Amino acid sequence: MTIAISSAFDSGNIHVVRCDGPDAIELTIPKDAHSDFAQWFHFRLTGAAGQAVTIRITGLEESAYPAGWPGYGACMSEDRETWTRADTAYDKAAAGGTLTIRLTPETNAVWLAYFAPYSMERHHDLIAETALADGVTLDVLGQTLDGQDMDLLTMGTGPLKLWIIARQHPGESMGEWWMEGALGMLTDPADPIARALRERATLYIVPNMNPDGSRRGHLRTNAAGTNLNREWHEPSMARSPEVILVRDKMDETGCDFALDVHGDEAIANNFIAGAESVPGFDDRQQALLDGWKAELLSRSPDFQVEEGYPIGKPGSANLAICTNQMAHRFKCLAMTLEMPFKDADVMPDAEHGWSPDRSMRLAEACLGATLAMLDELRA
Amino acid sequence: MTIAISSAFDSGNIHVVRCDGPDAIELTIPKDAHSDFAQWFHFRLTGAAGQAVTIRITGLEESAYPAGWPGYGACMSEDRETWTRADTAYDKAAAGGTLTIRLTPETNAVWLAYFAPYSMERHHDLIAETALADGVTLDVLGQTLDGQDMDLLTMGTGPLKLWIIARQHPGESMGEWWMEGALGMLTDPADPIARALRERATLYIVPNMNPDGSRRGHLRTNAAGTNLNREWHEPSMARSPEVILVRDKMDETGCDFALDVHGDEAIANNFIAGAESVPGFDDRQQALLDGWKAELLSRSPDFQVEEGYPIGKPGSANLAICTNQMAHRFKCLAMTLEMPFKDADVMPDAEHGWSPDRSMRLAEACLGATLAMLDELRA
Amino acid sequence: MTIAISSAFDSGNIHVVRCDGPDAIELTIPKDAHSDFAQWFHFRLTGAAGQAVTIRITGLEESAYPAGWPGYGACMSEDRETWTRADTAYDKAAAGGTLTIRLTPETNAVWLAYFAPYSMERHHDLIAETALADGVTLDVLGQTLDGQDMDLLTMGTGPLKLWIIARQHPGESMGEWWMEGALGMLTDPADPIARALRERATLYIVPNMNPDGSRRGHLRTNAAGTNLNREWHEPSMARSPEVILVRDKMDETGCDFALDVHGDEAIANNFIAGAESVPGFDDRQQALLDGWKAELLSRSPDFQVEEGYPIGKPGSANLAICTNQMAHRFKCLAMTLEMPFKDADVMPDAEHGWSPDRSMRLAEACLGATLAMLDELRA
Amino acid sequence: MTIAISSAFDSGNIHVVRCDGPDAIELTIPKDAHSDFAQWFHFRLTGAAGQAVTIRITGLEESAYPAGWPGYGACMSEDRETWTRADTAYDKAAAGGTLTIRLTPETNAVWLAYFAPYSMERHHDLIAETALADGVTLDVLGQTLDGQDMDLLTMGTGPLKLWIIARQHPGESMGEWWMEGALGMLTDPADPIARALRERATLYIVPNMNPDGSRRGHLRTNAAGTNLNREWHEPSMARSPEVILVRDKMDETGCDFALDVHGDEAIANNFIAGAESVPGFDDRQQALLDGWKAELLSRSPDFQVEEGYPIGKPGSANLAICTNQMAHRFKCLAMTLEMPFKDADVMPDAEHGWSPDRSMRLAEACLGATLAMLDELRA
Repeated sequence: MTIAISSAFDSGNIHVVRCDGPDAIELTIPKDAHSDFAQWFHFRLTGAAGQAVTIRITGLEESAYPAGWPGYGACMSEDRETWTRADTAYDKAAAGGTLTIRLTPETNAVWLAYFAPYSMERHHDLIAETALADGVTLDVLGQTLDGQDMDLLTMGTGPLKLWIIARQHPGESMGEWWMEGALGMLTDPADPIARALRERATLYIVPNMNPDGSRRGHLRTNAAGTNLNREWHEPSMARSPEVILVRDKMDETGCDFALDVHGDEAIANNFIAGAESVPGFDDRQQALLDGWKAELLSRSPDFQVEEGYPIGKPGSANLAICTNQMAHRFKCLAMTLEMPFKDADVMPDAEHGWSPDRSMRLAEACLGATLAMLDELRA
Repeated sequence: MTIAISSAFDSGNIHVVRCDGPDAIELTIPKDAHSDFAQWFHFRLTGAAGQAVTIRITGLEESAYPAGWPGYGACMSEDRETWTRADTAYDKAAAGGTLTIRLTPETNAVWLAYFAPYSMERHHDLIAETALADGVTLDVLGQTLDGQDMDLLTMGTGPLKLWIIARQHPGESMGEWWMEGALGMLTDPADPIARALRERATLYIVPNMNPDGSRRGHLRTNAAGTNLNREWHEPSMARSPEVILVRDKMDETGCDFALDVHGDEAIANNFIAGAESVPGFDDRQQALLDGWKAELLSRSPDFQVEEGYPIGKPGSANLAICTNQMAHRFKCLAMTLEMPFKDADVMPDAEHGWSPDRSMRLAEACLGATLAMLDELRA
Repeated sequence: MTIAISSAFDSGNIHVVRCDGPDAIELTIPKDAHSDFAQWFHFRLTGAAGQAVTIRITGLEESAYPAGWPGYGACMSEDRETWTRADTAYDKAAAGGTLTIRLTPETNAVWLAYFAPYSMERHHDLIAETALADGVTLDVLGQTLDGQDMDLLTMGTGPLKLWIIARQHPGESMGEWWMEGALGMLTDPADPIARALRERATLYIVPNMNPDGSRRGHLRTNAAGTNLNREWHEPSMARSPEVILVRDKMDETGCDFALDVHGDEAIANNFIAGAESVPGFDDRQQALLDGWKAELLSRSPDFQVEEGYPIGKPGSANLAICTNQMAHRFKCLAMTLEMPFKDADVMPDAEHGWSPDRSMRLAEACLGATLAMLDELRA
Repeated sequence: MTIAISSAFDSGNIHVVRCDGPDAIELTIPKDAHSDFAQWFHFRLTGAAGQAVTIRITGLEESAYPAGWPGYGACMSEDRETWTRADTAYDKAAAGGTLTIRLTPETNAVWLAYFAPYSMERHHDLIAETALADGVTLDVLGQTLDGQDMDLLTMGTGPLKLWIIARQHPGESMGEWWMEGALGMLTDPADPIARALRERATLYIVPNMNPDGSRRGHLRTNAAGTNLNREWHEPSMARSPEVILVRDKMDETGCDFALDVHGDEAIANNFIAGAESVPGFDDRQQALLDGWKAELLSRSPDFQVEEGYPIGKPGSANLAICTNQMAHRFKCLAMTLEMPFKDADVMPDAEHGWSPDRSMRLAEACLGATLAMLDELRA
C-alpha cells in the first residue's frame, strides 16, 4: 500500500505538498480560517508500517510562533491513547523553516499532532459524565457561530465564585486535558480538596471556550477568525459570541477568582501570567498572585516561576485579554496558566514531553493551591 | 436555563422549527446533501433536567421511509453509553406525519438519535485498536470526496476470501456496532471460531463504507448525494469513490463470500436479503444461502427467516446493489444482513429496542454461521 | 536476594525439598488432606528476576495421574492475569518421575500452578456481581466442613430445570473459569441465547462445589479427604455435605438437564462423558446426548468427540458419580464436561495451552448447545 | 432461605452465638490467636434480601478498645467494591457492651467488617502490578511463621532512604488501602511528585508487615499472638520474624525517614504520633516533625493536628514501638500515621465514614508532604 496523509477528521489540519514515498513527504500548515495564524497540525499517516519515514513541514518561519519549533518534538500515537514524541528537528534556514519528523510506525496508521488532540466527541463524553455526577449542573450559555453549544458546568454550594475556563485558543488542547483532570478530581467524592472547595465555593467551569476552532483544527481563532483572548473588552455576538456569553454569565454570578488555562508555543515550562499591569492592580492582588504561585510551586514540581512573560508597565495592560479584564472588572485574583507544547524543562520527560497525563496532574495541584488561598480571596 | 437543541457535531442532523418550552418543540429532519432522503436525526436537547418534555418531529410522511415511524421508539442517552428508547408515538395524520417523543431527562443534556450513533472518532479508535492486534493489516484504499480514508482491515492466512462491509448507508449505524462486535471476536486470541476462520480464510473487512455520510449525519448517501448501494454496477470516482475503491480491491483479491451489513427502517426484525434474483443464480448458491441462514438461526434467537424482502423474479436483480453484484461477479454466497431500527419482534426488548450490544452479539453469531459453512463456500 | 518458594496462600500447594539456586530447586507435591491424591501444585517463586531457573518436581509416578505429565506445560504468570505455559518436560525415569520446568522471570515474583488458579476471593467477587444482576437469586444451601458457604445462583423463569455445577474436584480450576464465562453470558441483558434460556428455563448454578478443597489447594477432595464425585449415591453430612446439600435441592426443584464441569489430567482435548452405562439409559437419553454433543461441535472448534472415556457396559455405571446419578434419578440428559489441563489438540495454542479465556468461550458455546436442545429435553 | 452467617474466608472473624431470624442475631468477636485482643470482625450475612436485619455484637466492653464503639458505624458492602456505613449504635450497658447494626440488604449476600478488608489476594495483585512497573524491585525478606512472604518494594535512585511500612496491626486494613494509593502514585510516570521523590530518594516500602494476622482475621497480632509494634527493640525469629527481617534490612540500607501507617480505633480523625519522647530527640527532629505535619495539613483537609495521642515525657518513649526505635536508631524523622476506623470529624462523610478511597487520597498528600521536606531530612 502507498503512503498517504489525511486530515478530514475532528481537529485535522495539514496541507500535503507532496507525499511520494517514505522520504518524500512535504507538508505545510494551513492558516486558521479568516486569519493569519498557522501552527496547529493534526493528520494521519497511513501505509508506512515498518518503514523509516521522514516528514518535512516547511514554511514555518511564517507560522504564528516560529520560536515554537526549536526544541519541539512532534506528538505521535498509534493507539490514540498514548502519545509520545517523535524524533524531531527544526532547521530555520531550510525551505522557509523546516520541521523534520522521523518515525518508524509499527502499524499502517499513525496519528501526528502539534499536541495530543482532545476531540469534541471526548468533550461531549466529559460533559455527559460530569453532568451526571452528584451536585453538578450543566448550563448551555448559547451557541457558537458554527452552532455548537457553549457548555458551563457548575458545582459547589459556597459563597465564593471561582471561574475556570480553558481552550480559548483551540490548538492549546492541553487546556482541555487539564480540565479533564480538574473535573475528575472535583467529582471524586473521596477527595478532600474537592469536597472543601465545593463546600466553601461555587465553581463555574467552561472546559472548552472555543468549540468551533477545536473542531476545525485551528490554533488560535474561532469560526470567524477571531482570537477570543483579545475580545474581553468589547465582545460581540458577531465576532465572539463565546466571550460575550461567558462574560455576561460572569457579570451575573460575580467572580472572586479567575483562571484561564492556555498553552505556550515557545517557553518550555509551565508558568503563570498575572494581571500585574492592569490599571488599579493593588497590593492585595499582588499578594494573592504571589501566594497562589507559591502554593502551586509547593504542590507541583512541574511548575516554576523563573521563566514566563515579562510584566508590563503598571496600568499598561491590554484589557481585551481575559484575565486582565477579570482582574480589572472584579478586582479579584485572575491568572492565565500557560503549559508548554514542548516539555517542562524543570523536569523533562524525553519520551512524552509535556503530556495529557501531566496536564491532569497539574490541574489537581492547581485546585490544591486554590483551596490553600481560598480564605484570602476576599478580604 | 432555557431549553435548546443543537446538532453541530459528528453525525448531528435536525432542523429546529421552534423550541419555545418543554411542550413547544417542533423539529424537522433535513435531507441528506444533494438528495431527497431524510430520516436520520441526531441532536442534543439541553436545559430540560427534571422537566417532562414533548418533542414533535413533523412532515415525516415525506421522509425516506414513512413506514419506519409506526412502532418506532426514539433512541436516547444521557451518559452517551447506554441508549434506551423514549416513549414515542407516530401520528400519520398530524402535520404531515408527526413523531411525538416524550421524556423527562435527569440532567441538562440528553442526546437523541434515530439509532445509537457511531462517531468517526470511535471509528478511528476501532481501527487503531484492531490494527494493533496480532496478524491484522490496515490498508487505506483511497479517499472519499470529503478526503476521509477508506479503511480496510485484513486478517487471516487461509485461501478463502471473505469480504464483510458495513454502513454503505451511514445512518444505519447498527452496522458499525455490528462491526465492533465482529472485530472484537476476530481479534480475541482465545476465541476458537475466530482462530478457525483466520486459519482457514482471509477476511477483508470495511467497517465503514461511507465515512462522509457518517460524519455529515446522512441516512443513505455520501457527500455527493449518491446512494452507494446503487453504484456497484458502474461506480465512478466522481460519484462513488467508496465503491470503486472497494470493488477494485475485491477484483484483486477475489471473493468467496460477501456480507453487507445494513439496517432496515420498516421491518421490526433481523433478516437476510439474498441474491436469488441475480441472473445465473444457481442451486449451489441457493443451498449456501439456505444453509447459512439455517446456521445463523440456530445460533441467534434474535434472527428469523419469516419476515424480509420479497424475492424478485429470477434474473431481475438490480446489479447495482452490492451483494447482487458480488453474487453475480464472483459466483459466491453474497448476502445483505438487515437489522432493525425498531426492535427484533421475535425477542422484543421494550427498554432498549434493537441496540448496539445486540448488534454485537448478532455479529458473533454471524461469524459462527460463516465458519459452519466455510467448507462449502467453494465446491 | 535469594531464590525462594512459598505457597501459604489461597490454593497454594507445594513441598520444597531444596531451593539452593536457580538450578537447584527440587519440589514435591503434597497429597490432599486425608487422601492419597497428589497432583495440584501452586506456588510463588521469588528472587529470580532475569535468571534462567530450572525447577524439578519429583516423585510424580506416584501422583494421582502420572499420565497427566507427558505433554503438559506448567502454567505461569507474573501479572496474575495472563497465564502462559513454561517450557516443561517430563522424564518418567528420573527420580520417580520428574517434571522439569524452565523459565526466566522478568520480575522477582512469578506464580506457577497446575492450572490458572481461581481463588475463593474471586469466587466471592463472582457471586457478588452475579447476585446483583437483574433476576438472579443467591441461596446458601448450607456450610462445608471448613465452614464455607455452599452458594447456589438461580435465574430464569421458565418451567425446565437446568442444573450446572463445577469444581467438585477443586484442582480443576478451569471449571470455575468456565462458570465465569457462563455467568457473564447469562447476565448479559443483550445476549439472545441467555435471554431465551432464562425465559424458557430456570437455571440452578453452583459455581464451586468444593470451596474447602479449593482454598486448601487440593486436587480432588474436600476437607475430609472425600472425592465428592463418588458420593452422589449416598452422601453424608459427615463426609460430603457439599453433595447432600446440592442433591437435596435438586430433589426439591427437579432436574431436566445436568451438566457437571470438570478437567481431565491426561486427555489433551475437551470431551463429554455421558451416562450411557447407567441402568435404564434409553434411546431418548442417547438421542439427547448425541444431539447436544453435535450442537456443541457445531458451535466450538475447541470441542471434539473422537477422544474421551470408554463407555462402560450397559447398566454398569457407578451411580456414585454425579451425572450418572442425575441421569438415573431424573431420567434426564446428564453429562460431565471434561476440559484439558494440557491443551486442546484439535486446536492447539503453544503459548497458553488450554486457558481461562478458552474455558469461558467454551461455556458460551455450551449454553448455545443447551438452548438448541431445550425443546427436546422433556418429551 | 434462612439467614446465616459465615466467616471462613480471608480475614474472616466472628463467633455466632445465635442466628435465628432477622431480629435474633447475636455475635461475639473471637480473640486474636494466642492473645487477648478482640476487635476485628468480618463476616458474610446471607439469606436476608429485602429484610430489615438487626445484628447484635455483644461483650464489647471486653474488646481491645471499648472506646472504639461509640460513634462507630459498621462497614458493609454487597458488591465488595463500595463500602458504606450501616446504621449502628453502641450501648455500653447492654450485654457487656452491645453494638447494634441495622441494615436491609438488597441481595442475599452482604459482607460486614470492622473496616473495608484488604485481602491477601489483593495484596498479591498489588505486589505483582507494582513489581512490573518500571524501576521497581521486589525483594522477599523472608517468611512469616505461617510461611507467607515478607514483601519489600524498592524504587528510586536518590541518596535519601525513605522507609514506609503499613499494617503491623493487620486489622488496620486502611493501612494497605493507603499503600495502594501511595504505590499507584509512585508508579505513575506522569506524576511529578513521584518522579521527584524517585529521583532524589530511594523508597523502601512494606505494604503489609503482618500477612499472617491479615489472613487470619486478627486485629493486632501475628500468628504467634505477638503485637509487632512492641517488638522493635528486641525482635526475634520465634516471636516476631516480620520485625527482625525488616529491621535488619533497615540497618543495611540506613533510614532517613520512616513512616508507619496505622489505624486508630477511638479517635475520629487522622493524626500523627511523633517520637518526641524518645531519648535524645532534638530540635532538628522536632522541626522536621512540625514541618512535615504543616505540609500535610496544607495538602489534605482530611488531616488535622488538634487531636491525637498525648506526648510522653522527654526520654520516656517505649523503644519497642517502631517509629520510636527508628527515630532513636537513625536520628531521623520517624512518625506513625493514624487513620480513623470511624470517620474524620474535620470533614465527616456520613455515607462512607473513613474509607479506602479517602485513605488513598491521604497517601498521595503524605507523599507530597514528604517531598516538600526532603531537602531538610538530612542536615
